[in-house]
Amino acid sequence: MTRFHFDCDPGHDDAVALLVAAKLLDLTGVSTVFGNSNITNTTRNALAILEAADLSIPVAKGIGKPLVDNAINAESVHGKSGLDGANLPPPATKPLSISGPELIINTARQEDDLKVIAVAPLTNIATAIVDAPDIRDRIREISIMGGSTTFGNATPAAEFNIHADPEAAAIVFNSGIPIRMVGLNVTTTFGITVTQVQSLLATSGKLARAIGGALDFYLNKQQSLYRREYAPVHDVCAVAPYTHPALIRHENMHVDVECTGKLTRGQTVCDQRRLSAAEGLAPPKASNAAVAVQADGKSIIDLVMNTLQSYP
Amino acid sequence: MTRFHFDCDPGHDDAVALLVAAKLLDLTGVSTVFGNSNITNTTRNALAILEAADLSIPVAKGIGKPLVDNAINAESVHGKSGLDGANLPPPATKPLSISGPELIINTARQEDDLKVIAVAPLTNIATAIVDAPDIRDRIREISIMGGSTTFGNATPAAEFNIHADPEAAAIVFNSGIPIRMVGLNVTTTFGITVTQVQSLLATSGKLARAIGGALDFYLNKQQSLYRREYAPVHDVCAVAPYTHPALIRHENMHVDVECTGKLTRGQTVCDQRRLSAAEGLAPPKASNAAVAVQADGKSIIDLVMNTLQSYP
Amino acid sequence: MTRFHFDCDPGHDDAVALLVAAKLLDLTGVSTVFGNSNITNTTRNALAILEAADLSIPVAKGIGKPLVDNAINAESVHGKSGLDGANLPPPATKPLSISGPELIINTARQEDDLKVIAVAPLTNIATAIVDAPDIRDRIREISIMGGSTTFGNATPAAEFNIHADPEAAAIVFNSGIPIRMVGLNVTTTFGITVTQVQSLLATSGKLARAIGGALDFYLNKQQSLYRREYAPVHDVCAVAPYTHPALIRHENMHVDVECTGKLTRGQTVCDQRRLSAAEGLAPPKASNAAVAVQADGKSIIDLVMNTLQSYP
Amino acid sequence: MTRFHFDCDPGHDDAVALLVAAKLLDLTGVSTVFGNSNITNTTRNALAILEAADLSIPVAKGIGKPLVDNAINAESVHGKSGLDGANLPPPATKPLSISGPELIINTARQEDDLKVIAVAPLTNIATAIVDAPDIRDRIREISIMGGSTTFGNATPAAEFNIHADPEAAAIVFNSGIPIRMVGLNVTTTFGITVTQVQSLLATSGKLARAIGGALDFYLNKQQSLYRREYAPVHDVCAVAPYTHPALIRHENMHVDVECTGKLTRGQTVCDQRRLSAAEGLAPPKASNAAVAVQADGKSIIDLVMNTLQSYP
Repeated sequence: MTRFHFDCDPGHDDAVALLVAAKLLDLTGVSTVFGNSNITNTTRNALAILEAADLSIPVAKGIGKPLVDNAINAESVHGKSGLDGANLPPPATKPLSISGPELIINTARQEDDLKVIAVAPLTNIATAIVDAPDIRDRIREISIMGGSTTFGNATPAAEFNIHADPEAAAIVFNSGIPIRMVGLNVTTTFGITVTQVQSLLATSGKLARAIGGALDFYLNKQQSLYRREYAPVHDVCAVAPYTHPALIRHENMHVDVECTGKLTRGQTVCDQRRLSAAEGLAPPKASNAAVAVQADGKSIIDLVMNTLQSYP
Repeated sequence: MTRFHFDCDPGHDDAVALLVAAKLLDLTGVSTVFGNSNITNTTRNALAILEAADLSIPVAKGIGKPLVDNAINAESVHGKSGLDGANLPPPATKPLSISGPELIINTARQEDDLKVIAVAPLTNIATAIVDAPDIRDRIREISIMGGSTTFGNATPAAEFNIHADPEAAAIVFNSGIPIRMVGLNVTTTFGITVTQVQSLLATSGKLARAIGGALDFYLNKQQSLYRREYAPVHDVCAVAPYTHPALIRHENMHVDVECTGKLTRGQTVCDQRRLSAAEGLAPPKASNAAVAVQADGKSIIDLVMNTLQSYP
Repeated sequence: MTRFHFDCDPGHDDAVALLVAAKLLDLTGVSTVFGNSNITNTTRNALAILEAADLSIPVAKGIGKPLVDNAINAESVHGKSGLDGANLPPPATKPLSISGPELIINTARQEDDLKVIAVAPLTNIATAIVDAPDIRDRIREISIMGGSTTFGNATPAAEFNIHADPEAAAIVFNSGIPIRMVGLNVTTTFGITVTQVQSLLATSGKLARAIGGALDFYLNKQQSLYRREYAPVHDVCAVAPYTHPALIRHENMHVDVECTGKLTRGQTVCDQRRLSAAEGLAPPKASNAAVAVQADGKSIIDLVMNTLQSYP
Repeated sequence: MTRFHFDCDPGHDDAVALLVAAKLLDLTGVSTVFGNSNITNTTRNALAILEAADLSIPVAKGIGKPLVDNAINAESVHGKSGLDGANLPPPATKPLSISGPELIINTARQEDDLKVIAVAPLTNIATAIVDAPDIRDRIREISIMGGSTTFGNATPAAEFNIHADPEAAAIVFNSGIPIRMVGLNVTTTFGITVTQVQSLLATSGKLARAIGGALDFYLNKQQSLYRREYAPVHDVCAVAPYTHPALIRHENMHVDVECTGKLTRGQTVCDQRRLSAAEGLAPPKASNAAVAVQADGKSIIDLVMNTLQSYP
C-alpha cells in the first residue's frame, strides 16, 4: 500500500492539509522547510499541530533558506508565528536528529511504494535529489501545491512556493519523477467562508477550535490583502487526489520553471497548447506533469470540515 | 468623431479584421509590418484585400524585422504567401512613399481623435513612439491583439505578435498611451467553423468567397496544428470594442512584457491579483491596460459573417 | 574621400572629441542624443561648442530616452549642465528641423563614403537602422566609444554608453555594418593630468580655456569618484583611428551585447578566445568588430592638447 | 596549523594541483565532482593519482551533475577518460562510503583551522553549505580556481568551472565564507611548454613520467583548440597562495555570479572599479573575495616541475 512523506511549512493551509493527510493517509514522516515563516517557526508549528492531534509522526527539521536567493517573507498572510490565531501550546516533542533531506532520502530508500506530498518551497526535496540521485527511481510521484497555469500571488507571474526557491523547483520538475501539480488556477477558486470558520469555533473538539482560530486570522488577511470573501485551502488540494481521486481533474502537460525572467522568475511555465509537431516549429516537449485544471470545491471544503471536526 | 489607424500583417485573421474595420469604422490609413509573413507579402496582401474590396485607404509599407531579434516565421499557420487560399489577384495599387512609422507619426499629428488598432508585431508603433515621443499625447488609445492572461501559442508562455518583437511591445505597453488588449485567453475560445466556411464559399459576393477560401486553408491548419475544430478570428477582437462595445468584457490591470526570460521571453505579464498594498509586500503597480477577459463569441462570429457577406 | 557623421551627448570628453574631429576630419553633420545629460542639455552643449569654435556644422537634435528603459543619469560625472565648468555662452544657432535619426538616414543615402563616429548611447543610430535598413549597405563603418573587453563603469560589467541603451547597442552590433570599438579597457589607461589642465587654462585661445575649465571640473570628479589621478578622454579614442591610425591597436573578434543579465545587462561580450572549431563545442562566431586592445596614450594626449590649443 | 580539504575533477591540471598540494600541504581529504569528465572517471582518476603517488588520503565520491542544468562536457580538452595520456593503472583503493558533501561537512565540523581548495564545479561545496549552514562559520577560506576578471573559455564570458554550475557558484560566492579566487586572467598567462613536457617524460620518477604523458596530450589540445604554445596549469594557482604566498598578487573586490544572462550565464562579475559612493549612484558592494590579478608564472612553473620530479 502506498505510504506518504509530507513536506511542509505550516502555515495555515499547511496545518489543514497535514491534519487531513494524517487522518486519511499512511504518513511515514514529516519534513519542515522555511516558507510561510522561518524554519524555527514552521518546525515548532508542525510539532505543535501533531502533538495537539495526538499523532506520533516523526518530524525532521529541514532547510532554512532557498538554494540561491535569500528567504522571502509571508508574514503579511500568516502572521509573525506562521500560524497566528491557532494559539497551540508549545510542543514537548523534538524533531529527529537527522535533517529534512536526510529523512526524505532514508524514507525513499526504505519504502517500496512512496509518494511525496510537497506543499512548501521545494528546497528539501531538491536537495535530497541532488544528494542522492538514486531516489529519483524510488519515489513514485510528488504531489506539489505550487505554481499556476495562469497567474501568481507572490508576483503577477509567480506563486509563492515556487517563487520562494525557483532553482529547487526547477530541479524537482526536471528530475524525471512523475509530478502531480495543483496551482493557484484551481486552489483560489474556492475556500473556507466566515460561516464555516464560526462552525469550527463552535465545535466540541479542541483541535478544530484551534484551527478555527487560525482560519479566522487567515480569512481576515485574505479579505484585506486579496479582497476575497473566502480563505483558499491551497495545500489540501495536493492531498485530495490521494484521498478522493474524483475531486480534482488533471491534464497532462509539460511544466518547467522560469529561473531567469525579470518579471517572471519563479513562474511555472505550463504548456497548455495541444500542439502537434509542425514544419518550422520546435516540437512540443513531452508531458512531465499531471496539472490540476478543475476542482469540485464544495466537496473539498466538506472533506476539510468533516475531517477537522472528527478530531477529538 | 474618432478615426482609426490600422497596423497589420495579413494574415488570415488580419484580412477579416481589416474588412470589418474598413466597413464599420473611419480608417485614416493602414500600415503593414512583418509577422504572419515577410513584409513584401504582408504589404501585397493588404493592398490586394483593399483593392478586391474596392476600398481606397492609403497603405504604408512598414518595418521588415523586429527591433532586436531576427524575424520569426508563421508559414505553418498562414502558408507561404501569408494568405494562402485567398487567391486574390495581384494588386495594381502601390504603397505610399513614406514608411509605416512615418504614416503613424503624420496621422497622429494631424488627427485630433485618433485611435490605433494594432493586430501584428508592434514594431511600427514602437518605432513611431521612439522617433516622435510627442505622439504619445496625440493617440487616444491603442487596441492590441496580442499577448494573453494565461498561455501562449508561439511558445508555452508567449503569443505570436508579442513574441515576434518583445522590445517593441515593451515600448508600447510602457508608453503611457492607454492600451486595450485582447489576448489568446479570449480569442481562442471561439471561431469560424467548417459550416461557416462553406457558407462563405457559397456567397454571391466575390470577396466573401475569396475570404472563404482563405479561411478554409486556415481552418485546416488550426485542426492539424492545434487540434481545434474552429478557426479563431483573433484580430477582429481588437476591432469589435469600437463597433460593438458590449461584446467583450475588459478588466483594468497592469501589463508589462517579459523581455529577458529563458522560457517566457515575449510573455505579457498581466497582474490579475486584486492586491491591496500590504506591509512587507511591494505595492501593486497602477493599471495601464483594459484587458479582455470574456467575449460573446457567437455575436462576434455573426458580426464577421454578416460583414463579409455584405461586401459585393 | 571619407566623410564622417558624428553622434554625441556632450559631455566633457565628447566636447574634446568633437573639437578634434571637427578640426581634422570632414564632418557632414552632428546628431545629439540623451546620455551624459538630457537631450535639451546635450543639444545646447553641442551647438555651444561648435559656435564657440566658429564651426558651421549642422546639428540635429536626436532621441531623448533609450528604446526600452528609462534614461539613466550621469550628473555625478558631468554635472547638471552635462558640461559643467566650460561656461560657454548660450548658442544662437538652432538645430535642424529634422531629427537625429533622419539626419543619419539622409546623410547615409547621400554620401558615398560615409563613416559614423558614435560616442554616446546608440539610440539614434539603432533607430535609423530600424527605420531605414537600406543604410546598412551605405555606412562603411561605425566607430564606437563604448563597452569594454573587461570591466564596466556604470555597473561592474557594463560601460555607460552601452548600459544606457542595451537594445540599441544590440541592434547596431548585429546590423552587419563593420564596427570599430574602443572600450574602457583602453580608454581608462591614460588621460589628462592636472598639469595639462593648467596648461589649457593658461592658453591664449578662448576655446582652449573654456575646455580647460570643463576638464578641471571633470578631473575633480574622476579623482573623487574613481580615485584616478587623470581624466580619461574616452571619446577621442573613437576619432583617433581616422586621424592617426597607428595610435590604437585593434584585434578582430565577435562582439555582442547582453540585454538580459541580472548583473551584466549592457555588457559588451567580446570573444577574446582564439578558439578553433572543435568536436563537442559550439563553433566560434565570425568576427564583426575591430576592438581596441592597446593605445599609445601619450601620443593621444599630445594630439588632444595640440588640437585644442590650435583653436583661436 | 591549517589543514586543507581538496575538491577536484581530475582532469590534467587537477592532477598536477593535487600532487603539489599533497606534497606541500596537510590534506584532510579529497572530494570528487563531475566536470572535466563524468563523476565515475574523475573519481577513478583521483584514486589512481593518489595510489600512484603512494599517498593515503581519503577520497569521497561527490555529485555527478550541476544543481539545475545538465552536465557539460570537456572531452575536447581532457579526452574521454578525463586524464588521457597518463595511462595510470586502475586504482585498487575505493572511495569512502560517505558522499563528497558529507565529507566536507564532517571535516568542517571536526577541524578547527580548515581551508578548502576547490578546482572544479562548486556543486559539492554548495550542497554542503545548503545542507549544513553551520559550516560557513567553520571554513576559514575557500580558494577557488574559477571565473575570470576578463574573458571566458567555455563561452566568451564564462570560465568552465563556474559555467558548469552557475547556481552552485552563486551559493559559494554569496555564502559569507572568505573567497580567494584565481581565474583565467591569471592562469592563462603562462604554462608548461613542450620542452618541460619532454623533461618530465625523461624523469626517472614513474609518476612524473605519467604526468608528462598526460601533459603531452593536454598541451596538444591547447595548441589545436586555443592556439597556445603552452599548457596552462590553472588549478595549481589555487594551491600556490598557501605554499608560496608571494607568487600571486590579489586585490580585494566584490564578486558575484551571473546566473541569468543569455550570453553571460556563468560569468564571474568582478567589480574592478575603485568606486567611491556618489550621489545618484548605487554604492559599491563590499569586497567578498581576494582576486588574483598577477602571477609570477616562471616561479609557479618551477614549483610544479620541482614537485612533480620529487615524486619517486
